[in-house]
Amino acid sequence: MTLSPYWLRDNCPCADCRDPRTGQKLFQITDLPGDLTIGDSTEADGVLVVEWSDGHSTRYPVDFLVGASDDDGRTELGKPLWAAADFAAGLPEADWAAYVAEPAERVAVLRAVRRFGFALLREVPAVERQVLAVARTFGYVRETNYGELFDVRVEADANNLAFTNVAIAPHTDNPYRDPVPTLQLLHCLRNEAEGGDSGLVDGFRAAALLRAEHPADFAVLTGTPVPFVFRDRGTELRADRPLIEVDTLGRIREVRFNNRSIGTLRGGDVEAFYRAYRRFAEITLRPELQLEFRLGPGDCLIFDNTRLLHARTAFEQDGARHLQGCYADLDSLASTLAVLERRAAALDTLAGLFEGEGAGEYLGEAVTMAEHMLQCGALAEAAGAPDHLVAAALLHDVGHFGGSGLELMAGQDNRHSHTGADWLARWFGPEVTEPIRLHVAAKRYLCAVEPSYLALLSEASVFTLQVQGGPMSDAEAAAFAALPGAADAVAVRRWDDLAKDADAVTPGFEHFRALLGRLMGN
Amino acid sequence: MTLSPYWLRDNCPCADCRDPRTGQKLFQITDLPGDLTIGDSTEADGVLVVEWSDGHSTRYPVDFLVGASDDDGRTELGKPLWAAADFAAGLPEADWAAYVAEPAERVAVLRAVRRFGFALLREVPAVERQVLAVARTFGYVRETNYGELFDVRVEADANNLAFTNVAIAPHTDNPYRDPVPTLQLLHCLRNEAEGGDSGLVDGFRAAALLRAEHPADFAVLTGTPVPFVFRDRGTELRADRPLIEVDTLGRIREVRFNNRSIGTLRGGDVEAFYRAYRRFAEITLRPELQLEFRLGPGDCLIFDNTRLLHARTAFEQDGARHLQGCYADLDSLASTLAVLERRAAALDTLAGLFEGEGAGEYLGEAVTMAEHMLQCGALAEAAGAPDHLVAAALLHDVGHFGGSGLELMAGQDNRHSHTGADWLARWFGPEVTEPIRLHVAAKRYLCAVEPSYLALLSEASVFTLQVQGGPMSDAEAAAFAALPGAADAVAVRRWDDLAKDADAVTPGFEHFRALLGRLMGN
Repeated sequence: MTLSPYWLRDNCPCADCRDPRTGQKLFQITDLPGDLTIGDSTEADGVLVVEWSDGHSTRYPVDFLVGASDDDGRTELGKPLWAAADFAAGLPEADWAAYVAEPAERVAVLRAVRRFGFALLREVPAVERQVLAVARTFGYVRETNYGELFDVRVEADANNLAFTNVAIAPHTDNPYRDPVPTLQLLHCLRNEAEGGDSGLVDGFRAAALLRAEHPADFAVLTGTPVPFVFRDRGTELRADRPLIEVDTLGRIREVRFNNRSIGTLRGGDVEAFYRAYRRFAEITLRPELQLEFRLGPGDCLIFDNTRLLHARTAFEQDGARHLQGCYADLDSLASTLAVLERRAAALDTLAGLFEGEGAGEYLGEAVTMAEHMLQCGALAEAAGAPDHLVAAALLHDVGHFGGSGLELMAGQDNRHSHTGADWLARWFGPEVTEPIRLHVAAKRYLCAVEPSYLALLSEASVFTLQVQGGPMSDAEAAAFAALPGAADAVAVRRWDDLAKDADAVTPGFEHFRALLGRLMGN
Repeated sequence: MTLSPYWLRDNCPCADCRDPRTGQKLFQITDLPGDLTIGDSTEADGVLVVEWSDGHSTRYPVDFLVGASDDDGRTELGKPLWAAADFAAGLPEADWAAYVAEPAERVAVLRAVRRFGFALLREVPAVERQVLAVARTFGYVRETNYGELFDVRVEADANNLAFTNVAIAPHTDNPYRDPVPTLQLLHCLRNEAEGGDSGLVDGFRAAALLRAEHPADFAVLTGTPVPFVFRDRGTELRADRPLIEVDTLGRIREVRFNNRSIGTLRGGDVEAFYRAYRRFAEITLRPELQLEFRLGPGDCLIFDNTRLLHARTAFEQDGARHLQGCYADLDSLASTLAVLERRAAALDTLAGLFEGEGAGEYLGEAVTMAEHMLQCGALAEAAGAPDHLVAAALLHDVGHFGGSGLELMAGQDNRHSHTGADWLARWFGPEVTEPIRLHVAAKRYLCAVEPSYLALLSEASVFTLQVQGGPMSDAEAAAFAALPGAADAVAVRRWDDLAKDADAVTPGFEHFRALLGRLMGN
């Protein structure tokens, strides 16, 4: 494999080049010398060590070098482009109560929005403004000229056809905004009217059909900026964007489709544009693409406004139909999903460490590392300690694990005594990580301030005390006591010292999973 | 000129095809027949009349047919791409008090953001959260993982280098968001630190320089999606977008540049990418592009985060420097600017009508139309009427103006008695337009309910009463009295009847301009 020096160096994971916590780079690309080359490089145990011409040295996990191109999350790449029949067995949906309570349900719903462009929440409390609370479970509300939220019902003096009782053909919302709101939520409060059913069309599928059937028309629509316009007394919006937007590699990434707000196209081959536009419009109306369903009170539809077209049938003028809607954005939804998945993966990693490496010897004690940590967590739990201290007790020695899994996930060398706390800081707050960071110091502190404490220590612990620096001086002890988390660290330390009973029966890691999951969300 | 039938028909301005108020289209493109053709067409007096093969008929203002391609507002098109020296005479700036009070100042500031990518407000109250109030003068705050607003000062445990005291090279914010926040505001509360100066670079200029000097590098950067990433405990954002984004016609429309958050590029020619990226980075650092200045307390910088790169110099760790920032979006700013400009243009149009057509004869009265309306407004003002009634009195006969200016701006035939109210509804609320809509009915109402009223009417007015339908029946009068604005219409009517004094001295239109401007903002 030939490696590009600047690419490789720009990805140096060392703590001088990159903030370990955020991954932000600490140097400018222009800081690198103009003649940078790779000097010696050696590979062993899955690590490539590169010595650079400017004297820098980098350790790369070999896995990193062969990483595949990831799903970009926004284009058609990796997404099933659907027709109505694909949901014959049911829509992607979840109950609100489960969605709120269970991370796995949230993951399933958010993944459906990412994969299919929509998901339906059932039994959401049918109260006003609840739609904003739904949006805030995964992101931020995007306010527009229609307000923070908007009411979809028949209005006198409506400034938009949406607020009348007429049928609305499949369309995307707010194409005259740039940036367009990328997500829409519609929460049904009442729907007693005859008619007023909802429809969705996969706009990416429609665009892909146009590409397959009429490639020249597809090229016209992806290449023609169209003015979308909206105007009322306090608003005058305009965005010039193609009906079908592709990324620089030609992948479909955004559809804007709204006959009501296409303004006057100026210049270009308008004849060709209208031919292509009419063909695309016809495709969006094909019966097999129309996914139709009825929203009832408590249903909240979440959908991707850059991909799906939504529609509704006409309904009686006086029919009681009331939805509340709001806009939000895909980026925050994707972030929330990634964090939930990362947390689940972290819990799996921890479980794996307790079961794998954790079965190893614990520095000369009569228990394994995993038994020691599980006992420690159980002692904290039995003492009625708050969740964050149970977690700190359970995880206090995670930095002892030298496994490559942990090392790689941390993205840095396992060279600090604080590695455990630093690694856990990706998921847990300081109330969990700081007692862990200080639990070795707490031993030295207790030896200084409690003469009787030393007698409680195991033989191995007395030995390591000397390696760790011996009892603190008075000044050190005073400084320690002033640190945030010091008292919690002392508590963890006392359970730590007791958790070496070869005969104790301790719960397994799974016993603590839900508690850890809750703390990650804090 | 050869006209494309579907293009022409899609732009039919008639009230059956398009909502007169919002311009929203009332038909689907697929509703048009597949074999639509233009039948007879005739042109006279600036109007093209087209008879369609499906029986529809349209009247187009000829001006519409030759309209030029408009500035799209977001690409480099029509924008001066600047270097620091272009602002040697001063930055685009305004005082907060003037900005708030005077529409013309607001227009100047918002136009500067659109043209140059930034503007500076001075003497903004240096109080916390004020930056949100600034954003709300032209749009909506975009909340992110950094909050509704963020504090830029040295923070313990900073999750971003921005919140430390180190120098930050020119960059755009949040490139890992998609949609990226398109505007940023930075409001200085304190800046007593040594260092901590601000810098701006026109990223469009830098990109244009790369295009001119190294076209192949420009092609690489516009064609390579780059993963931008950000991660902390509650966030995991990623966007795959090119460093320089061009629209489908090749015009620069967005720059994302942030060395800290460029992730690992996978696939493609990474060697070529890094060569181009380094060259572009070097251009962004050219001294002549760096516009440097110092924000003092009360200064609020508004800038385009899709175009400008911003930077700051390092400052003392303990220096008191505190900015508050927030994000917003260009689309709403452009809308606010367009509405302000439209209102100013409407006032100019009204002034022109009073001075031009208004000098014409008023249906057999001894005063001109303009004198009559100005007298009517002056009578309302002298009576201590509220602003909206002064405006209604002043403008009540604007529908009598048959001029092509009004007709064209209304985008429809001047065929309704309500044309004046409908046209004014683009700028004024119903408290102004409804009394105008009802002022003819008010005459018929007063004749019915006040027997003495008829005696007050001028000869011409008695004549037109018959044309207008004569006095109302009791049922008609009761229905009229129940309408919103009926009482106001009666008040306007009484001033109307008095405002026919050939000897009265009346103020000119300019006397009323500020009052009308205030009402437009309601």
